[in-house]
Amino acid sequence: MNKIVESLEWRYASKRMNGKKVPAEKINNILEAIRLAPSSMGLQPYTVLVIEDEELKKKIQPIAMNQPQIVESSHLLVFAAWHNITPEHIGEYISHTATVRNMQEEALSDFKNTLLSIAENNTQEQNFTWAAKQAYIAFGTALVAAAAEEVDATPMEGFNNAALDELLNLKEMGLRSVTLMPLGYRDTENDWLANLPKVRRQKEKLFILQ
Amino acid sequence: MNKIVESLEWRYASKRMNGKKVPAEKINNILEAIRLAPSSMGLQPYTVLVIEDEELKKKIQPIAMNQPQIVESSHLLVFAAWHNITPEHIGEYISHTATVRNMQEEALSDFKNTLLSIAENNTQEQNFTWAAKQAYIAFGTALVAAAAEEVDATPMEGFNNAALDELLNLKEMGLRSVTLMPLGYRDTENDWLANLPKVRRQKEKLFILQ
Repeated sequence: MNKIVESLEWRYASKRMNGKKVPAEKINNILEAIRLAPSSMGLQPYTVLVIEDEELKKKIQPIAMNQPQIVESSHLLVFAAWHNITPEHIGEYISHTATVRNMQEEALSDFKNTLLSIAENNTQEQNFTWAAKQAYIAFGTALVAAAAEEVDATPMEGFNNAALDELLNLKEMGLRSVTLMPLGYRDTENDWLANLPKVRRQKEKLFILQ
Repeated sequence: MNKIVESLEWRYASKRMNGKKVPAEKINNILEAIRLAPSSMGLQPYTVLVIEDEELKKKIQPIAMNQPQIVESSHLLVFAAWHNITPEHIGEYISHTATVRNMQEEALSDFKNTLLSIAENNTQEQNFTWAAKQAYIAFGTALVAAAAEEVDATPMEGFNNAALDELLNLKEMGLRSVTLMPLGYRDTENDWLANLPKVRRQKEKLFILQ
């Protein structure tokens, strides 16, 4: 079996974790996969908070439907998308691209104007939704990367976004929380889901061949 | 270097492909990774069209800003999310879960009611946006799986969704196109992007450690 398919068969959304710490090397590989994830126009319009602080996790737990993995995880990732796509964001991206590719910024002016006009023609909410979708690509990438490291990861959408944004001062940073991902190790003894077969739509239903 | 990080370093959004066919085994591994991708509540509210037909690809190209990879790809994936989340969808999912887990459907009635009330309390557009976000997780998973197989994959959002929906009769199937992903092999000689350094936000900017 292909290694990624094998990792995806192995993974599941752990409902309980055992509190063991994930080694820094594995965390770094997962973060590097997130950093390398592609995004529309290459903009990466999101920030990922990597929370190890136990007190902070305790404050987040009630905001996230009291799910135990929040505090039983080793690291809690918070994927937060840009509240809006601003000329400052675009300027920074263009300037960084010019540096990495050893070009003059002027050579990127058409690309910059395209980005500026997309951002300006969208409403703030449309820009946020677009940014959030890009964060979901990175989120999917992180789930695969964690599984490949045999680190459990539970994708979570069920939490009070506004309350989390306030707790983490995300608004001041121009961010809004989108998803959570506790990283850690499954507690098979206490997790009702640990030994249930995985449910996925059948090939014949999920795919249409043309 | 970790294998997934290595694959993500190798990949890039090919702007030209060379038309070579990707072997069925590799395509099957990529599709199986998509099938195993997680989604909120496990619903997998999307369908993926796998297009090999050359005539159909030619019709799609003008709808997708004439991007050459559409026709130069081996297989073109169209990720299409459910237009709405209906009681029929939920009923089918619950019934399939009961079958896979060898349970009575009644044992899943609380879960079913939760799903029904989420779908009913959302507007159709909110349900679609939720479904589209789930499709992005599968889309991210597919990008990593393709890279692991050394198959090039170009994530695309830039196309006329309404025109594509009409061409592929997606509306009749209760679907709306979200993203495209040509799969194939890079044409390094003709691709201006092939040898440019990858641009990604710096660790210190993308992550906040707490």
